[in-house]
Amino acid sequence: MAKGLTPQSEDFSAWYNEIVQQAELASHSPVRGCMVIRPYGYRIWELMQSALDDMFKATGHQNAYFPLFLPKSALDREAEHVEGFAPETAIVTHAGRAKLEEPLVVRPTSEAIIWPILSDWIHSYRDLPVLLNQWANVVRWEMRTRPFLRTTEFLWQEGHTAHATTEEAEEETRRMLGVYRTFMEDWMAMPVITGLKTDSERFAGALRTYACEGLMKDNKALQAGTSHHLGQNFARAFDVRYQTEDGEHVYVWSTSWGVSTRLVGGLIMTHGDDDGLILPPKLAPHEVVIVPIWRNDDQRATVLEAGERARSALNEAGVRVHVDDREGLNPGSKYYDWERRGVPLRLEIGPRDVESDSVMAVRRFTPEGADRKVSHPMAGLGAWIRETLDSVQDELLEGARRRRDDATVRGVEDYAEFQELMHGSGGFAYTGWCGESDCEQKVKDDTKSTIRVIPDEEFQSPESPPRCLCGAPSIGEVVRAKAY
Amino acid sequence: MAKGLTPQSEDFSAWYNEIVQQAELASHSPVRGCMVIRPYGYRIWELMQSALDDMFKATGHQNAYFPLFLPKSALDREAEHVEGFAPETAIVTHAGRAKLEEPLVVRPTSEAIIWPILSDWIHSYRDLPVLLNQWANVVRWEMRTRPFLRTTEFLWQEGHTAHATTEEAEEETRRMLGVYRTFMEDWMAMPVITGLKTDSERFAGALRTYACEGLMKDNKALQAGTSHHLGQNFARAFDVRYQTEDGEHVYVWSTSWGVSTRLVGGLIMTHGDDDGLILPPKLAPHEVVIVPIWRNDDQRATVLEAGERARSALNEAGVRVHVDDREGLNPGSKYYDWERRGVPLRLEIGPRDVESDSVMAVRRFTPEGADRKVSHPMAGLGAWIRETLDSVQDELLEGARRRRDDATVRGVEDYAEFQELMHGSGGFAYTGWCGESDCEQKVKDDTKSTIRVIPDEEFQSPESPPRCLCGAPSIGEVVRAKAY
Repeated sequence: MAKGLTPQSEDFSAWYNEIVQQAELASHSPVRGCMVIRPYGYRIWELMQSALDDMFKATGHQNAYFPLFLPKSALDREAEHVEGFAPETAIVTHAGRAKLEEPLVVRPTSEAIIWPILSDWIHSYRDLPVLLNQWANVVRWEMRTRPFLRTTEFLWQEGHTAHATTEEAEEETRRMLGVYRTFMEDWMAMPVITGLKTDSERFAGALRTYACEGLMKDNKALQAGTSHHLGQNFARAFDVRYQTEDGEHVYVWSTSWGVSTRLVGGLIMTHGDDDGLILPPKLAPHEVVIVPIWRNDDQRATVLEAGERARSALNEAGVRVHVDDREGLNPGSKYYDWERRGVPLRLEIGPRDVESDSVMAVRRFTPEGADRKVSHPMAGLGAWIRETLDSVQDELLEGARRRRDDATVRGVEDYAEFQELMHGSGGFAYTGWCGESDCEQKVKDDTKSTIRVIPDEEFQSPESPPRCLCGAPSIGEVVRAKAY
Repeated sequence: MAKGLTPQSEDFSAWYNEIVQQAELASHSPVRGCMVIRPYGYRIWELMQSALDDMFKATGHQNAYFPLFLPKSALDREAEHVEGFAPETAIVTHAGRAKLEEPLVVRPTSEAIIWPILSDWIHSYRDLPVLLNQWANVVRWEMRTRPFLRTTEFLWQEGHTAHATTEEAEEETRRMLGVYRTFMEDWMAMPVITGLKTDSERFAGALRTYACEGLMKDNKALQAGTSHHLGQNFARAFDVRYQTEDGEHVYVWSTSWGVSTRLVGGLIMTHGDDDGLILPPKLAPHEVVIVPIWRNDDQRATVLEAGERARSALNEAGVRVHVDDREGLNPGSKYYDWERRGVPLRLEIGPRDVESDSVMAVRRFTPEGADRKVSHPMAGLGAWIRETLDSVQDELLEGARRRRDDATVRGVEDYAEFQELMHGSGGFAYTGWCGESDCEQKVKDDTKSTIRVIPDEEFQSPESPPRCLCGAPSIGEVVRAKAY
């Protein structure tokens, strides 16, 4: 049985660590910074993978698999890339009981192994575009780790594409940012701001990095996905050229884009409450749990039979459903257990429900004005549950959006006011920016907040603030926040 | 355009390497022994994964994910296990620009990281059985590598389970061997012999290892999947005990079982011919390719329109179909291309087919007595194609089984005859065995053949040979072959 949770308001970080353990999402391992993803957590990741993979394939991408190891010399080829990644790599120096002639780097990202290989595959304009994706594990030797949010090894997908022109590469970069946003909003019910990263937060080796930024319940931002226009940087580093229709040999333009198991952390911190996890139906391992309630063997047989009928009706309606018929655990403990694990809907079926041929549906998340508990006849149950789950999905997004908007301040110009905000309630602050990285760094040093993005048009304020926090004229609006 | 293939009869190994390249299944990488799995090859693996994953889930297993790295000390805990795997491990000695206090081993298999973790999860008989599976990459530093068959890094699944009794563990070990056999026969159309490995071929750390052995077209055996009853060896090494209902603390019994990307190699070598790959429909990225044929723009429009109608009819019938509407490539080159890539059925649609509202279906694999080319009306196309693909699937298994049986000799007792067989045509040879590993080793040294399995009952000969190849009395029948 799960222990009590630290309330979010008391210590959000303790709450997070406890919920990861108690909902059996992940646990620590004997290897520093590496987590074990437990079946319940892994099932969430599988549902994420399945939805994303469908979207990647629908946009013309194919999966492939490239080696785990990069020759050290390959990582060194792109100057900015190696500078960005070398400090956090894990190095294989020995294998097969011998010292390697050249050490191998465990991939922190795969550009440095993919590009030398693509140079063999790409010859002519007819070979373009190349639209690849890889589901893989990567390793970045992080100093401070937290389950899902920052681990030494993590699971992710990395898209890698090659194009004939910068326009096509830019279009692809933006398209995949859009795919991520759609996934985060429609599946995770996590609203995000999209926009451009400043140079200091750009992917090492990219021309431009775009990101999706969510706002967690502690008012800290989470960079949930990034999409990079890599320009011709990797093409030059690995000499990947194609012959144009006119017979010229031109470097290809490339992109890369990725999301990782970090999304599971984002899901937890977007919706969870003091009772535990809250999962949006589309990503819940069980959308519905049925708890049969009995006091004696006669009752047991009839409620289990009714539970089975409900299960089969829900199955037919395409609902992922689990019947909790564990012996030796009272219904209250089962309720507590599944609430902790964030199951969107619970169906209680006791002897009186069987008599009236109905079930009692209890929501994990109840928006204002809705009833937490509703009795519904067994007839038409499948369709009604499907409909209810669909509205839960919408309500979660709606609720998260309202919370995010409530924690957003626009038009901040006064630096003292901004500092107070960042040392206090946090959230997203829209401000001006002079465009200087020194100023960006000073604000970071003073407040621990960073520029999350230069927001895309639809997220921009109607009126941008005329001045940067430093008092200089702005080159544009930025979104600032403390972040994970 | 692909080059010619070396005929199988001339050099099977060259044929294999060429087909892997020409069908774009995999390519070499700059990292020794590591291959790149290209989209066409990876799609086959995805289809394999999907079928296997469904079967694992249907038998009650859940997926999870354990770290890539094992602390070196953990690998050392089980004596036979470390002796078996240490010589082929890759070792991380440095990370984050510092030397590690304890080197990390890149997993060659995950027992040594899973068991220390499961010791935290398992306390009582109520926690059993634990039924886990993991899809992951593993690394074994092999001296000689070949794409899919033996690579330094490979992709696989590894099941790991814990049970209260040896009987339950044995039942699980056998159940998963059966799942593998069903997959190999019903999806891969690759008949296999199942049975027990001798001690010398047992998994390092197991009590008993069972295997599925297929016979490739060059009459060499391929160990395609293994299932291990690990006894209490890992439970003892990592102190994993559970409390029984009587309050005793008892070591758990465990199993592990795995198949890998090696299966793709098995698929190639079970069915391929001198024209290239032959894929069973269930694992073909495209079950059908439609080739529209035109000579002028008018024809182009009508045949493409008919192709589109055929595509949509097949889609509705649940067939994976691709329309090859590439410009600048004549139909003959397209035929050649898709035959090389093993697509089970090709539909040709030319102006005359459009006129008669029909399509010409051409099989990649034609069993004796069947027509290679058949014209079929557009009406009812979906159902007919689905049916045809189903029979192609059956015919491939049937054909492979006949070939395997033709290359099987039973009751071999004379050692000279056996040596001649192994130095000549190869294949499976059923012989007796005295049970001595010295004798086993001598036969291996003399003939390069090994005991593949002590076959399960249904594969045993009606009459077992009374004597081992060495002349001593037999303890039972074994299947011998040269193997990959």
